[in-house]
Amino acid sequence: MTPVEPTFAILAAEIRRQLAAQGFNHLLAAELTELRPGFAELAVTRRAELLQQNGFFHGGVTAFLVDNATTIAAATRCKPDQAVLTAEYKLNLISPAVGARLVCRATLVKPGRLSVVEAKVYSIDGATETLSAVALATIAQVPVAKVA
Amino acid sequence: MTPVEPTFAILAAEIRRQLAAQGFNHLLAAELTELRPGFAELAVTRRAELLQQNGFFHGGVTAFLVDNATTIAAATRCKPDQAVLTAEYKLNLISPAVGARLVCRATLVKPGRLSVVEAKVYSIDGATETLSAVALATIAQVPVAKVA
Amino acid sequence: MTPVEPTFAILAAEIRRQLAAQGFNHLLAAELTELRPGFAELAVTRRAELLQQNGFFHGGVTAFLVDNATTIAAATRCKPDQAVLTAEYKLNLISPAVGARLVCRATLVKPGRLSVVEAKVYSIDGATETLSAVALATIAQVPVAKVA
Amino acid sequence: MTPVEPTFAILAAEIRRQLAAQGFNHLLAAELTELRPGFAELAVTRRAELLQQNGFFHGGVTAFLVDNATTIAAATRCKPDQAVLTAEYKLNLISPAVGARLVCRATLVKPGRLSVVEAKVYSIDGATETLSAVALATIAQVPVAKVA
Repeated sequence: MTPVEPTFAILAAEIRRQLAAQGFNHLLAAELTELRPGFAELAVTRRAELLQQNGFFHGGVTAFLVDNATTIAAATRCKPDQAVLTAEYKLNLISPAVGARLVCRATLVKPGRLSVVEAKVYSIDGATETLSAVALATIAQVPVAKVA
Repeated sequence: MTPVEPTFAILAAEIRRQLAAQGFNHLLAAELTELRPGFAELAVTRRAELLQQNGFFHGGVTAFLVDNATTIAAATRCKPDQAVLTAEYKLNLISPAVGARLVCRATLVKPGRLSVVEAKVYSIDGATETLSAVALATIAQVPVAKVA
Repeated sequence: MTPVEPTFAILAAEIRRQLAAQGFNHLLAAELTELRPGFAELAVTRRAELLQQNGFFHGGVTAFLVDNATTIAAATRCKPDQAVLTAEYKLNLISPAVGARLVCRATLVKPGRLSVVEAKVYSIDGATETLSAVALATIAQVPVAKVA
Repeated sequence: MTPVEPTFAILAAEIRRQLAAQGFNHLLAAELTELRPGFAELAVTRRAELLQQNGFFHGGVTAFLVDNATTIAAATRCKPDQAVLTAEYKLNLISPAVGARLVCRATLVKPGRLSVVEAKVYSIDGATETLSAVALATIAQVPVAKVA
């Protein structure tokens, strides 16, 4: 078992605290199912309020997962006196998300003042995972004072 | 006063019907405040459930507006036997959205099998509009049978 | 006639000097046909070396114009001790560029540490301009010492 | 040794023939160094004509590699009566490309009428590879008659 570095544990707690303070994350009932340096997994469970007119997860839900998961992945390498802000992202919707869960896995490709994060979104039904979207995001690090 | 073309009135009614059938649009209480050939405006009103931890509209709300408004703008030029599906989009978050309303205005730049749509998102407080995000989207037209 | 602000004249001269030092800009024989605060226009003339297999301007030429024009538009508002670096961009190729000239017009939407620039690329034949591509770019300002 | 499927050999020959017919690819002296179903690698060698003012490979060269390599990767799964056309792409420039070679590796994530392709661009010096850019592209399949 890899011991969690104490510094990262503090950072992870702060990330979870901030996520819990997001009204929109609460509205979607998204869960941070994995968090480690350079990686975040965020997931929502199927319910009618998250769908579009054909019964697929709405593209806006996919975008929300991408937005939050990529920012969190960048935050795992954020310096103590810095905060992360999403600068931009792009996503390709690849296949209708019809599964019971929608999961976004975000991997930090390049840390730094301008972090670059890749994300993949999977529609999950039991053991079957179907790639539903791919994304690429740029996350800026800014002094904490500028955000709060 | 420009008379509404009968064909467009039918199309507009269908667009509004489909939007009303989106659970996620209902969850966010988004309103289609303007709809004409090649243009759509979609807006949400500030409430705690749509914010992030600093009291700004969540980037995922911005992305949702971009997703829906660009698709609708493309749908205004959709052929009768075709449906629209978002292929991809990219958005730049320009300034924190702190206003009472968040409004996305989507303009069809190029209609066709692969429509290209530009969007701008404004944070609005009384008479003051602040540009909060810009976006560029690609919307595919596919035979109706492939979507339903 | 609007008098050119002395400070901008100095900045414009520096922008032109740096552009002239780009081997790749020289290889494509691109010309900076307009430059003012927040705006840049860059153009190339049709010749076989810039085309793809169907006789259209190559998408890579379009991307080059977007890359350089958006960076230059951001540079027009760059602070004295700062340099600009392209962080990312996205472009949609809208129609084959078959004209005699390919022209990119880049407009700074948001200046700052992370500038956002919109661009449109036109294929031009005589008096006829056809929209060939649209783009959205993020340009970073970094201390000069980090680039040179 | 995996035998090359005859059908793919024919397709690969056609891809190489079309690439050889691109004036712009010739101008940059780009080489298709690997080609297999769902994958393409395209590379250029450092020379002054491909650089910007600081001695890095120009971002436009990176974009050209992304443009061509992603289109070729999509073409490897193209149906006989179809041609590929780049719809759009987005690239993040991650680090200055200072190596002797610049190599783009494009991987088809999702084949189909709208293919999605991921690409990574590496700056290479001897045995050292440095990630210089990441990209995401959408490539459309259209009937051959519409392109020629």
